[in-house]
Amino acid sequence: MPLGERYGGDKSESRYCGVETDFDDDIPNLLSFNIHGGFDFLLATLMNPDYRPSLLGDDTSRSHALPFAGSDLVLSPSQWNSHVVGKISSWIDLDSEDETIRKDSEIALKQEIAWASHLSLQACLLPTPKGTSCANYAKCLNQILQNLGSMQLWLRIQLDDSEYDAAERNPDHRGEGQIDSWELWNSFRLICEHHDHLSVALDILSSLPSSSSVGRWFGEPVRAAIINTNSFLTNARGYPCLSKRHQTLTTAFFNHSVQIVITGRPVHNIPLGASGSSSENPIEGGWRHPLKSYLDYLAYLYQKMDPLPEQERFELGYRDYLQSPLQPLMDNLEAQTYETFEKDTIKYSQYQRAVAKALVDRVPDENATSVTTVLMVVGAGRGPLVRASLQAAEETERKLKIYAVEKNPNAVVTLHNLVKLEGWEEIVTIISSDMRDWDAPEKADILVSELLGSFGDNELSPECLDGAQRYTSFIQPVTACKLYNDIKSHKDLVHFETAYVVKLHRVARLAHNQPVFTFTHPEYSTKKSNQRYKKLLFNIPGDTGSALVHGFAGYFDATLYKDVHLGIEPSTATPNMFSWYSLYKYLDPYDT
Amino acid sequence: MPLGERYGGDKSESRYCGVETDFDDDIPNLLSFNIHGGFDFLLATLMNPDYRPSLLGDDTSRSHALPFAGSDLVLSPSQWNSHVVGKISSWIDLDSEDETIRKDSEIALKQEIAWASHLSLQACLLPTPKGTSCANYAKCLNQILQNLGSMQLWLRIQLDDSEYDAAERNPDHRGEGQIDSWELWNSFRLICEHHDHLSVALDILSSLPSSSSVGRWFGEPVRAAIINTNSFLTNARGYPCLSKRHQTLTTAFFNHSVQIVITGRPVHNIPLGASGSSSENPIEGGWRHPLKSYLDYLAYLYQKMDPLPEQERFELGYRDYLQSPLQPLMDNLEAQTYETFEKDTIKYSQYQRAVAKALVDRVPDENATSVTTVLMVVGAGRGPLVRASLQAAEETERKLKIYAVEKNPNAVVTLHNLVKLEGWEEIVTIISSDMRDWDAPEKADILVSELLGSFGDNELSPECLDGAQRYTSFIQPVTACKLYNDIKSHKDLVHFETAYVVKLHRVARLAHNQPVFTFTHPEYSTKKSNQRYKKLLFNIPGDTGSALVHGFAGYFDATLYKDVHLGIEPSTATPNMFSWYSLYKYLDPYDT
Repeated sequence: MPLGERYGGDKSESRYCGVETDFDDDIPNLLSFNIHGGFDFLLATLMNPDYRPSLLGDDTSRSHALPFAGSDLVLSPSQWNSHVVGKISSWIDLDSEDETIRKDSEIALKQEIAWASHLSLQACLLPTPKGTSCANYAKCLNQILQNLGSMQLWLRIQLDDSEYDAAERNPDHRGEGQIDSWELWNSFRLICEHHDHLSVALDILSSLPSSSSVGRWFGEPVRAAIINTNSFLTNARGYPCLSKRHQTLTTAFFNHSVQIVITGRPVHNIPLGASGSSSENPIEGGWRHPLKSYLDYLAYLYQKMDPLPEQERFELGYRDYLQSPLQPLMDNLEAQTYETFEKDTIKYSQYQRAVAKALVDRVPDENATSVTTVLMVVGAGRGPLVRASLQAAEETERKLKIYAVEKNPNAVVTLHNLVKLEGWEEIVTIISSDMRDWDAPEKADILVSELLGSFGDNELSPECLDGAQRYTSFIQPVTACKLYNDIKSHKDLVHFETAYVVKLHRVARLAHNQPVFTFTHPEYSTKKSNQRYKKLLFNIPGDTGSALVHGFAGYFDATLYKDVHLGIEPSTATPNMFSWYSLYKYLDPYDT
Repeated sequence: MPLGERYGGDKSESRYCGVETDFDDDIPNLLSFNIHGGFDFLLATLMNPDYRPSLLGDDTSRSHALPFAGSDLVLSPSQWNSHVVGKISSWIDLDSEDETIRKDSEIALKQEIAWASHLSLQACLLPTPKGTSCANYAKCLNQILQNLGSMQLWLRIQLDDSEYDAAERNPDHRGEGQIDSWELWNSFRLICEHHDHLSVALDILSSLPSSSSVGRWFGEPVRAAIINTNSFLTNARGYPCLSKRHQTLTTAFFNHSVQIVITGRPVHNIPLGASGSSSENPIEGGWRHPLKSYLDYLAYLYQKMDPLPEQERFELGYRDYLQSPLQPLMDNLEAQTYETFEKDTIKYSQYQRAVAKALVDRVPDENATSVTTVLMVVGAGRGPLVRASLQAAEETERKLKIYAVEKNPNAVVTLHNLVKLEGWEEIVTIISSDMRDWDAPEKADILVSELLGSFGDNELSPECLDGAQRYTSFIQPVTACKLYNDIKSHKDLVHFETAYVVKLHRVARLAHNQPVFTFTHPEYSTKKSNQRYKKLLFNIPGDTGSALVHGFAGYFDATLYKDVHLGIEPSTATPNMFSWYSLYKYLDPYDT
């Protein structure tokens, strides 16, 4: 039973909560016990833990069946697929010094994954590497991944606490067994070449590393977080609860489609009769799963999260989805594209405010009826900036003459109709032309444009509002495993070289962003080149540990006029605007 | 309003019926008139028919808007997208001898398609090429297709009648204007390199070409059939109806997702008050669209089609979908795959019948209790052939000893469980091994196998039922534009070289199939090579006209024992069996 529903049709995977179980011959019973108890899926051992390939004689192998927990027919294909995550035997150690163990491990690992694959399980949990050296384990996994169908492999990694500090205090220590567990994951992932079926299941302990250290994981493909019952505290009424930091982390997992799995024995003695009318007496139908109070607490956390705002829900499908930036100079935008961007009312009200301020500054009240200000909208589209400018004129009771320049002949059709419909023929002149070719018959007092990309200069520009002080672009290094894999899947250089527009979600922002370029308009000097170059040094907080940079996130902020600004730089972003997502650009760390 | 619903959730595109309209300034009214009248979409001219680019002076072009029927805002994006197919101006002639017309045509074609694209229309109808030479038209379209989004272009082609005969009677005639209209389409399609956004809209006239000639089109990407009102006959009560051949064709269109469009003026005078209580008086709410009786007739044809059998409905998603053949030797099949194939009860009852006949032939009644027949199932999977064989033994009261050989260790797990569960331990010996490595301890009296691919020998074989006379493969040349394009989209040679398993639907079978190879088992000679070679000559019926061969469809028929056979060769196919679809293999026509 899902933990809750945050909004109508909540499809988040993190609604499903699992439970880790011990080996049991009777899988149907094990499943029914836990599903009935309120869990959605099992982390279940598939093979008898006593099995070792080397214990079987060669002569019997012909007719011998492997010691799995029953046949594939004990559950229906959809039960296997929806409710069971296979747990690979934890004795497996492919880097053991003992050759028998090593060989047994390799055979068993392959057999168990083949069996899980036969059952069409969605995922298997791989045991945590035993030591700091795990090259053979990783190499063998990489082989397996080459021929795996759609099944995910979750590598179990401890979200560990003290290792980083320990290493800092005593650098020699690290090589001898103490290692930042992220490094373990990273070396696996590199050997498996970022295979997108390899992901992470984090073991959550009672103490947590620093926020920066934990934060790294949100750019990694974490699919599950396994919380041990002994990581729970006890509240005043004797029930399990989590520390504030654990709560924050769990909520972040919920927001990043990470599924929670509960493991361990119940360690809280729930007072009898405490949970309303139901008692512990199974005869009265009041049977409760021994871990139910932990599950209830997680459901409580899930349900008390703030509901997702409508805009966010609408944009769920865009999260971490690579979009090629619009190229309005090269391509003509479609009607639907105009339709979408015209709906961004916040943006146009900022433009209206800026034009209004500029009009009042330029024309004193006493000249309001006698002076006409010449305003040019460059890139008028279907007219939203024309409308915003006219509204500013009406609001300030100033007189305007507008030139609306637009190169897309299809948008010009609509613009003509708009002007006719609204009776603006005396005020607005439509110029059906590329602005770069147009010889303006007079000079503009105010220039209005929305030709900004997510990075300020990546769509067109440099055209902007007259009197605009500047617009500035910002970048920030990120871990973004999902985006990196999506780019990689195209198998060509072009995609690695493209700067994408992305609603960033599953990323770890590793350092504060920094301004890159500032453009000032109008640019009176014609000698200045538009080629720019900048070198930046980012400081990753000292308690982060190691991290992999998959590229940079980019933002912009534009000053439209005086204090009226528009932008997406996270600390100053204009609220409720949806016209721009961030920029994401892969950058090879060795490519400097 | 769709023509009908053949089954719950009928999603066939051919449910939607369109109407061709004249140019009208008032698109909203035109749409509402026809939607209210019962049609689902319009074939609507987008630009004023009087417009010619050369009539506009250069000086006015800066601010001039193109003479479209209103702005994009007159309809909502979803109305444009769902209810309007753009009709490109019919005066356009890119191969005209008159240079002004030719230049105007090229400009207007590009402008109109850009406008349609701006509106996100699903499709545009392109005018029929004016003469036999259409190289410039096709070349220009090919350019346009390179930068087109998701919009389809429907080339309007007459399903013509007499041309083929005319050409046959007088071969010289063909070059002078008379041409098989398929050739026109084919030269377009070849110049546009089979672009998958280029398709056909067929004009249906009152007389139809031969069945073979019409049949060619079912392998082509036909999206619409435009039926003129004067192609309708009049029934005894004065209502429009279609000839038997037209009815058959229309039903075939419905079955192949081809949308019908009605064009022309109403030419049937429907008796007043004939349609029940409604009259022609608009005041009484009895208003009828002037073409409503034609639409009603098409709805009647749609609704009287046989309902789609459940199995067919289940398999709709597999139609014309390329599946890579299973490779049970190389890959271990998954539980879900076994599950699917085990459900094919017809297949296993054929096997049971064959084994039963073989048992009765081999062991006379008087020896039934004393003689035990040794039967080997090679490729036992999870046991369906073991079960069928045991049922045959029970039915005939003969005694069996079974060796079940299976190489997939995961299937062997289930096989062991099955044998235990059913108490077959005394009768069935499970051999967990690749049959090619296995030294059998005794000789088999009967060998049972289902290792047949769609082409007989393409999965594994040559293993088959003892006493089986043979199995035979068959091929047939087909036009299969959709499959060809799907293969081409991978842009590599491997996909062109792969033989796929396909539920063939949108294909034209151009000639009778012919047997290719016959395999006889057991093969006692070990000298005979499995390499085979065959040359076949196919005769395409004389009244077909030209056609393009996109490859070959392949089938098999296997004799299990005496008169018990199993197969998918269309004329003798075992009914209600779903384990095998046809084979489809691309073959370059120049590659011989």
